[in-house]
Amino acid sequence: MTPCPAEALTHPRAEAPADLVITGCAVLVHDDQERIRFEENAAVVVRGGVVESVTTADAVRHRPAVERIDAAGQVALPGLVNCHTHAPMVTLRGLAEDLPTEAWFNDVVWPVESNLTARDVELGARLACAEMIRGGVTCFADHYFTMDAVAAVVEECGMRAHLGEAFFSSQGPEGRERSLDFALRNRGRAGGRITTALAPHAPYTVDDADLAATAGLARAHHLPVHLHAAENRGQTDASLARHGVTPIGVLERTGLLDTDLLVAHGTGILDRDLPLLERAAGRIAVATAPRGYLKFGWPGTTPVRALRALGIPVGLATDGAASNNSLDVWESMALTALVQKSAEGDPRWLTARQALHHATLQSARAVGLGDTVGSLAPGRRADIVLVDLTGPHTQPVHDLAATLVHSARSSDVRTTVVEGRVLMRDRELLTLNVGAVAGELRERMPALIDRGHGRRIQEYDT
Amino acid sequence: MTPCPAEALTHPRAEAPADLVITGCAVLVHDDQERIRFEENAAVVVRGGVVESVTTADAVRHRPAVERIDAAGQVALPGLVNCHTHAPMVTLRGLAEDLPTEAWFNDVVWPVESNLTARDVELGARLACAEMIRGGVTCFADHYFTMDAVAAVVEECGMRAHLGEAFFSSQGPEGRERSLDFALRNRGRAGGRITTALAPHAPYTVDDADLAATAGLARAHHLPVHLHAAENRGQTDASLARHGVTPIGVLERTGLLDTDLLVAHGTGILDRDLPLLERAAGRIAVATAPRGYLKFGWPGTTPVRALRALGIPVGLATDGAASNNSLDVWESMALTALVQKSAEGDPRWLTARQALHHATLQSARAVGLGDTVGSLAPGRRADIVLVDLTGPHTQPVHDLAATLVHSARSSDVRTTVVEGRVLMRDRELLTLNVGAVAGELRERMPALIDRGHGRRIQEYDT
Repeated sequence: MTPCPAEALTHPRAEAPADLVITGCAVLVHDDQERIRFEENAAVVVRGGVVESVTTADAVRHRPAVERIDAAGQVALPGLVNCHTHAPMVTLRGLAEDLPTEAWFNDVVWPVESNLTARDVELGARLACAEMIRGGVTCFADHYFTMDAVAAVVEECGMRAHLGEAFFSSQGPEGRERSLDFALRNRGRAGGRITTALAPHAPYTVDDADLAATAGLARAHHLPVHLHAAENRGQTDASLARHGVTPIGVLERTGLLDTDLLVAHGTGILDRDLPLLERAAGRIAVATAPRGYLKFGWPGTTPVRALRALGIPVGLATDGAASNNSLDVWESMALTALVQKSAEGDPRWLTARQALHHATLQSARAVGLGDTVGSLAPGRRADIVLVDLTGPHTQPVHDLAATLVHSARSSDVRTTVVEGRVLMRDRELLTLNVGAVAGELRERMPALIDRGHGRRIQEYDT
Repeated sequence: MTPCPAEALTHPRAEAPADLVITGCAVLVHDDQERIRFEENAAVVVRGGVVESVTTADAVRHRPAVERIDAAGQVALPGLVNCHTHAPMVTLRGLAEDLPTEAWFNDVVWPVESNLTARDVELGARLACAEMIRGGVTCFADHYFTMDAVAAVVEECGMRAHLGEAFFSSQGPEGRERSLDFALRNRGRAGGRITTALAPHAPYTVDDADLAATAGLARAHHLPVHLHAAENRGQTDASLARHGVTPIGVLERTGLLDTDLLVAHGTGILDRDLPLLERAAGRIAVATAPRGYLKFGWPGTTPVRALRALGIPVGLATDGAASNNSLDVWESMALTALVQKSAEGDPRWLTARQALHHATLQSARAVGLGDTVGSLAPGRRADIVLVDLTGPHTQPVHDLAATLVHSARSSDVRTTVVEGRVLMRDRELLTLNVGAVAGELRERMPALIDRGHGRRIQEYDT
């Protein structure tokens, strides 16, 4: 009897050659209650881009494989997901420092972005992907402009991404139409590694009519929506003063809570917003990027505990490097744990294992890939990172979860794999050339950062 | 005429061979107002353990040198100083996670520390020094037990350190005497790389009589004092309730503010303490280790802005790895900037350049080495780290200070030099063997972490 494909996937014959065997490491797995456990002296077998099995090192000793990685002293975990970023903004890293939100937007970022060319976006995306692959990020949710250039880079470099072409109402209906066009043309691209979303910028830059039209398009085309909302308390207060409702209230009355919605930041979410989020017909998720909230001196942070109580996944994110200064999701994981403990005044909350749950299953769900990635289990896409724990800063190990969250760093990631393809091996990038990209960017910088023209792409006025 | 030694140091003859020339890099220097500037395409010349000059790459092209480092793409800066740690506690990294302060002390750390042997302390110190050297730390202020073992490791591995033997009043007068004995025997050891302090644990574990006696010993023997005080608001409230004065008030009435005093943490310092600190006859400094404050969910952080207004230096620190999970002073630098912005609600405060001032001159002053290290200038001891900025996460560079503080990581330190001796080159440690240390520690762990005996070295009760 010829086995059906699903059976072949999970119960291969012993002799079938694997594409990749990673062996001798600890492997982070989730039990059926989603609790995190570490299998010691284990192995991951990859075939056809998916995880065929997580088993013992002994069991794979004689398994034929195209590629073997001996990962003794390392931990295999699902690749990190950057749930909200503007990858090409790495070009502006360090350009707008020590500024309040309004000056950051109006005096630097939005004037500079009026100079942006497709080539700048492409080079920025390359540099960003290089940084993320080196930091163990296998997938990112990007929200920016000229996104065809980003999609091309994703296709080329081997990462996974969830992409949306951002728009403002100030662009007229063309902005929204371009966002839809991008989403329809690019979904499923790169062998399915690219998924897409509609990407209105935020309720303070996109009006209610445009948001309602976006919700309609999302339903009609079965597309999710990715936007900024209630980024900070100031925006919430301004929304209440102008519209009589919070930004989450705007999402509700425009129908966006009936769509699959990824909300960036949400540090201005109020208690009164929680029932709206609980009643939402769509799958709602929130991305938290706590470094920027500290840096801007915002008074709060994403209410992770309240969202968790509603079953709303909170994914980890970095935002763009123009505010966050890096795309280091590992740091976001640690900072989320630390900032949540501090905000709640409760050191027992957001334990290392909870942080790893956010970094894995919750982040995968936040970008609509909850059934595809986010855990190392048979049938999941083989997005895997190997983290070296032999350095002095990660020894001794009393509790692997604590070591990963609070002692390990993104620079401890030695190997990054997406769909079974090795994108970085022993810290060497295999699909991107950083020197060439950084060199060309340096030459383009004077034209990109020129603000002499006095233009800006948008005005920040919550 | 034979030049006197000082002239020889700063104006050597052109032909005198240098011990070490580092060239082609940017060099962080301070101007005469202590503002930070970067010399581009520069060089540092080291002779006799001190910086002979900071000059141009051109000027050293033909300079004979025992050792040359081509540091193109890198930045040379003064080695970081960890202004408050318990280095050997790396052995307990990850053992006491997600706990409030009291449970952390009483249920885990103080029971385990009753098992501590000199060998555990020695191995812990070795692992800690390895971690610090790899993270660009050239000097640390340590406050722990069995400190002769730590001093021996410092001597052997080449670091600089400011060491104190900790004591509680529960040990009787012997604790204080041992602390004095350690300080007198070890000051100036390792060719002057070791300085010492008296090290009462804290006002909540050392009584007023003992603190007053310590102040007397400090004056009599010209020794500084290093202790914990006003670690958190709870301690301040308890001190007010019990003694009618704050912990800083206790330091004042016991005469410790008349000594050269390094206060760890101080997140419980109140406005009413500021006049006491301002009037202090001794040189007062504070060490801030913000990661732990977030992790314990403490309500505040070190009042850096208020202390700065009084001219009190605030040095960067990690505390021990049992609470902080690493000895990563680079992370402390970034977190200090972020947490201070957040605490003050002011994104324009604690700029990247201010953070670098804390990391350099203020940290050197905090450990009593303000005239010796903390800047790269002729006559200063040659404690230098080289940071590689060619990685994708540190490109492009719009503002070197921002790149260093907010984008670079401790893992970007390629080379660490103390008194002109290279302790790490291209990430390879030259004076410590991590594998051997970690291996022996693993074997000793069961005995070290056993809590079956029910003992503890002290009780936490503010």
